[in-house]
Amino acid sequence: MGESLLVTGSIGIDTIRTPHGVREDCLGGSAVYFSMAASFFGPVRFVGVVGDDCPFDLAEVFAGRDVDLAGLEIRKQSKTFRWAGSYALNMDDRTTDSVELNVLGEAPPPVPQAFADSKFVFLANTMPSLQLRLLSQVSEPAFVAADTMNIWIKDHLADLKALLRKIDCLIINEDEARQLAGEYNLIKAGRTILGMGVDIVVMKKGESGSVMCSADGEQFLLPAYPASHVEDPTGAGDSFAGGFMGHLAGRGTPDFATLKAAVAYGTVTASFTIAGFSLDGLAAANRTDIDGRLEELRKITTF
Amino acid sequence: MGESLLVTGSIGIDTIRTPHGVREDCLGGSAVYFSMAASFFGPVRFVGVVGDDCPFDLAEVFAGRDVDLAGLEIRKQSKTFRWAGSYALNMDDRTTDSVELNVLGEAPPPVPQAFADSKFVFLANTMPSLQLRLLSQVSEPAFVAADTMNIWIKDHLADLKALLRKIDCLIINEDEARQLAGEYNLIKAGRTILGMGVDIVVMKKGESGSVMCSADGEQFLLPAYPASHVEDPTGAGDSFAGGFMGHLAGRGTPDFATLKAAVAYGTVTASFTIAGFSLDGLAAANRTDIDGRLEELRKITTF
Repeated sequence: MGESLLVTGSIGIDTIRTPHGVREDCLGGSAVYFSMAASFFGPVRFVGVVGDDCPFDLAEVFAGRDVDLAGLEIRKQSKTFRWAGSYALNMDDRTTDSVELNVLGEAPPPVPQAFADSKFVFLANTMPSLQLRLLSQVSEPAFVAADTMNIWIKDHLADLKALLRKIDCLIINEDEARQLAGEYNLIKAGRTILGMGVDIVVMKKGESGSVMCSADGEQFLLPAYPASHVEDPTGAGDSFAGGFMGHLAGRGTPDFATLKAAVAYGTVTASFTIAGFSLDGLAAANRTDIDGRLEELRKITTF
Repeated sequence: MGESLLVTGSIGIDTIRTPHGVREDCLGGSAVYFSMAASFFGPVRFVGVVGDDCPFDLAEVFAGRDVDLAGLEIRKQSKTFRWAGSYALNMDDRTTDSVELNVLGEAPPPVPQAFADSKFVFLANTMPSLQLRLLSQVSEPAFVAADTMNIWIKDHLADLKALLRKIDCLIINEDEARQLAGEYNLIKAGRTILGMGVDIVVMKKGESGSVMCSADGEQFLLPAYPASHVEDPTGAGDSFAGGFMGHLAGRGTPDFATLKAAVAYGTVTASFTIAGFSLDGLAAANRTDIDGRLEELRKITTF
């Protein structure tokens, strides 16, 4: 049934400004949001690096969850990644106020030997050459998904295209999809990206939901869960990926029907993340909440 | 079963600029798009006015369709409404290049006595006081929907609020909903508008679909049909309204399950409109096409 799930990504010290307030020096990072989201569905193998200044104890953060921190490196004399960002009133547009790459600008953490047999792999956003290097340490993955962002599309396109030929699924924002494809129409953009070598592309549209296309010509469109209050959208994309990959790994068979349910699970998991600052919203949820909201989403999107 | 359906709205001479080309002096107007869209579902009663300069023969345009033109007034010594607009690359944002209200700036056409018993009524966008005047000529409507736009929200809010207390359903764009409610979050905006007296609000999000909320607390979210080619979005909103009201009038019972199916029919009907300039896309479709696309939409939005 369930297959192993590995994530490689960042751990960050975030400062977040929204119309609702400011939260300074809180826990963030793609691997953190992903792991907490995926942990509702089954065990998670975590690979990431912090400096020895990191004020957070991840073992405590993930207490009671099946997150294997064997791949967490605490690097001596390095400093933890920091990010500060501000959200506009619409909560979809954000500005990066400052970035200190710190340890993320150094060599990536090694994938522990015990994780080399991982079957489902999520490569969170980082330089595509590093994603390739991390992936090369997994011997026979069954289903690999990755995220990317505008700066890699612009300045590291050859590496990104090499990555796309080695993975199964790309999960990106709609603007990134348009940029990567050089095509405004999202349906055409999806087809162009499929032509770059992936079998599945998932394009996230913020409060307007997501679109998934397959190389077999299948499509799936799902609105976002209707949120009447968005406290902090940080981590929504990585939480979506965590729910998506968590459901897929739990099922073990990424056929299109399972992929559709995975998009729905990603959608509702992310809806808990945005209800609170940092990881507060996600940490307060449980699997029953997620399943309940999935059924609610099904009801309000079915005619 | 089926109930009578009345539309009041405009007939226009449109000039449309899109990234795909220019079409000068083509047929447009809300009542025209609405009627052609609704005619796939049942008979339509048409109320609108043109000047004696109008180059279009609406009897010919609607030949073979059950559109009763008893409410079409051809006003002597008046000039037909003209509109020119340009679409941005994203096809959702448009600029009005010029408007000549002409006959639309005069008294509205009377609703013929034979139409006074209409049960389902759509008041297409115009000055709210005129919508009220048109509605007052219908004796016992069962379900009334209306459209409006930014200038009435800004400058005729009292009349618009009086209208909202007399109708059942408002069908508007997401930006208009935000403006009317004074609230960015669309779910909250919907609730605020319901508080103004309507039972149902449908908020259209262009290529991102639509959201419907009811005063009973029910919700429905549906993506747009995924179009890989948009030739001309003009009339999409009125075609949506035509499919929506056409289905409702055909069924005769606007319960929420029927309203959900009506949103889906509106969505697919509009998807034919945007595939061609002016009415070309809609005129080339038939009911079998619409039903086929509805099932396709159901398949690609169900998990």
